[in-house]
Amino acid sequence: MTRGTTLINGGWVIPMTDREVYEGGAVLVKDGVVGAVFRAEDELPEVETVVDAAGCVVMPGLVNTHCHSPMSLFRGLADDMPLASWLNEHIFPAEAAHINPETVRAGALLSCVEMLLSGTTTVCDGYFYEGEVAEAVVETGMRGVLAHGVIDFPAPGVPDPSENVEKAAAFVEAWKDRWPLVTPSIFCHTPYTCSEKTLAVAKEACRRLGVLFQIHVAETEDEVQRLKEERGISPYQLLDDLHILDETTLLIHNVWMSSRDMDLVARRGTTASHNPGSNTKLASGLCPASALMEKGIHVGLGTDGAASNNNLDLFNDMQLTAKLHKAYSLDPVAMDAWTVLEMATLEGAKAIGLGGSIGSLLPGKRADIILVDMNKPHLTPTHNPVSHLVYAATGADVRDVFVEGRQVVKGGRLLTVDVGSVMAEVNRIAAFMG
Amino acid sequence: MTRGTTLINGGWVIPMTDREVYEGGAVLVKDGVVGAVFRAEDELPEVETVVDAAGCVVMPGLVNTHCHSPMSLFRGLADDMPLASWLNEHIFPAEAAHINPETVRAGALLSCVEMLLSGTTTVCDGYFYEGEVAEAVVETGMRGVLAHGVIDFPAPGVPDPSENVEKAAAFVEAWKDRWPLVTPSIFCHTPYTCSEKTLAVAKEACRRLGVLFQIHVAETEDEVQRLKEERGISPYQLLDDLHILDETTLLIHNVWMSSRDMDLVARRGTTASHNPGSNTKLASGLCPASALMEKGIHVGLGTDGAASNNNLDLFNDMQLTAKLHKAYSLDPVAMDAWTVLEMATLEGAKAIGLGGSIGSLLPGKRADIILVDMNKPHLTPTHNPVSHLVYAATGADVRDVFVEGRQVVKGGRLLTVDVGSVMAEVNRIAAFMG
Ligand SMILES: [Zn+2]
Ligand SMILES: [Zn+2]
Repeated sequence: MTRGTTLINGGWVIPMTDREVYEGGAVLVKDGVVGAVFRAEDELPEVETVVDAAGCVVMPGLVNTHCHSPMSLFRGLADDMPLASWLNEHIFPAEAAHINPETVRAGALLSCVEMLLSGTTTVCDGYFYEGEVAEAVVETGMRGVLAHGVIDFPAPGVPDPSENVEKAAAFVEAWKDRWPLVTPSIFCHTPYTCSEKTLAVAKEACRRLGVLFQIHVAETEDEVQRLKEERGISPYQLLDDLHILDETTLLIHNVWMSSRDMDLVARRGTTASHNPGSNTKLASGLCPASALMEKGIHVGLGTDGAASNNNLDLFNDMQLTAKLHKAYSLDPVAMDAWTVLEMATLEGAKAIGLGGSIGSLLPGKRADIILVDMNKPHLTPTHNPVSHLVYAATGADVRDVFVEGRQVVKGGRLLTVDVGSVMAEVNRIAAFMG
Repeated sequence: MTRGTTLINGGWVIPMTDREVYEGGAVLVKDGVVGAVFRAEDELPEVETVVDAAGCVVMPGLVNTHCHSPMSLFRGLADDMPLASWLNEHIFPAEAAHINPETVRAGALLSCVEMLLSGTTTVCDGYFYEGEVAEAVVETGMRGVLAHGVIDFPAPGVPDPSENVEKAAAFVEAWKDRWPLVTPSIFCHTPYTCSEKTLAVAKEACRRLGVLFQIHVAETEDEVQRLKEERGISPYQLLDDLHILDETTLLIHNVWMSSRDMDLVARRGTTASHNPGSNTKLASGLCPASALMEKGIHVGLGTDGAASNNNLDLFNDMQLTAKLHKAYSLDPVAMDAWTVLEMATLEGAKAIGLGGSIGSLLPGKRADIILVDMNKPHLTPTHNPVSHLVYAATGADVRDVFVEGRQVVKGGRLLTVDVGSVMAEVNRIAAFMG
């Protein structure tokens, strides 16, 4: 890694430490860490390298709080169909037929490439053969909170479900201190595909290992309804009864939540991931994210896997978030641009347990920084760069990306792996599908 | 214009004449017209020029059925506020202070540049000083249905509202046979900002001149409610009473429609423009576009102006359309990718009165053709190019654009005007605002 002193200079610096844009500001990076943020009038230090960011927004890298990165293999394989058909007739069979360590590695590499090129520097991921995902994350130079999946059915690499938590815990052990940019975690699929025992044992393993517990909850109305009929409780109540709701659990989706569920989650300090692209495309509904945030819950944005979104561009999901919540509430003031930008950066970092080290350009934090080129027709004029980031930009406008101070994207080109080879390998695998 | 014979060869040809993808197909262009569409197995003719479209989708240029192109000047000037404040405290004052022939020309040029670069070959536009918009459309090589605006208030270039229809008709006369790619039209602002007399006289002028009549209708619940309280009728009933609903009227927005309104519009053969980006951002609601189409109404997609979207990338609005309607209806089968792609091409062309000449690659139609490069990480693998166009692509993936057979974008670069100068001029104007 480049460990020298770098000054990223010019443009609009948006550190996300407050709701302020430092026009003509600069950011000092030293030893992979944010050294300082300067305003236009400040005197700048002598440095080894200067990056000219004139015409660019300089801001923290985006944080994708939910993804299944190997699922880019199935992008566009099945769309416009009911969730059950999508899952049972297409995704599960495709996983059974095509998922192995090599394909997981190839799909994860493609997703990491897509995410880095579109300004996402950290991904919170869950899948099977997650060790291969970790290798892809390391190879591309990304940061990840990576979890091995737990489900009470035979799964790729885990033919015997009685060993599911054990396998997931082994992944955590293997990656606990292996690479500074990889933070391992455990992912239980849902409260209805994992038994209470599995859930409790998995959370216990997380506590013992000191890692984040992740779970999909209340994605569809149907799953909430069925639990209510069978047990008379909500999935949040179920998780709380098992002592799973605490400050190191991430709840994903949260579309069908009662006000009581929200209060419970807020009281426990549990965090949430909002996935508007996936939830709209699969017609699940809309997470009441504004209400969650009003109650003090940290809500980050997630793309979900590319099989259900169908891209991993968080700019896309930022825009969708800002627009969807306005349309649903018929309130044009709902989900303003600053709020959405916070969800995609600092709030997302807090949601996945990395709020102390990333998500803003606070001096001392890891230097995960992106430059977004505003010198484009669709971003002209620049009355308000924050508005443009949320309402007009796409991942294709990202010019440079730094992770832990190391430049991984320069002028829209990835420096760490050969993108053509990554695409070719996925195309080779995909030729056998469908 | 290049009037030779060109063969666009390879990739996935999607002519939009049926719901079929011709993998490895080709399109013959001759004298600005589609000559033929070939399948992979067909023998190809000898031609003057071959365009290698390997790895690209080859399809009709997108049709933007609603825009106010000069409003890109105000992109991001005011967001996240109630419609009335947005309009009365920001947009109207900005228009009063900054709109003149030069600024209209500059803003329209920027919008045409943005649209062509993102694959839109035809825009249906309405504003003041529309002659300047027409010049910008001609200069950039785009196709347009362009309307001078009519409103019963003093407006830019029309200080005396009693002359508003006259001025609009004079624009039509001036552009009726001036340039083959410009079709003039008249745009009445709304049923509540134009008197019944103005509406009737404007429609009468359209009939006399043989051009499209355009109007914003039922964008907000409030305007529909007020008319109901005052007159006991819907805006559609009002327009029908004035004999305005016919096959050459385009109704824009249509968010707050009753089932009776839909039946009336369908019976009259009147067409519609759906603007999901603007309607969500301004929290107006969602046009029941699926229901309209089920009743046989032609519904195209529109971006609306860049002050309320905030970009003019129809790929963005395609994705939004597909996702929004699924989320609202909780039906994952609603608004499938083919339907949305039709709205953005052939149905849009029909909606603005150009269904006979553009919107599909039917031999004999004008050769408005775009190439979308699928050789990108976020469009890999290519299980289904139609899915990718709607759910994963953005305007930044457009490689080449042809309008009437003339190449105007090549390798993502505009060939007709200097993009840097266009942006610089808008930045110069914007520096005096806000
Ligand atoms: Zn998921
Ligand atoms: Zn409009």
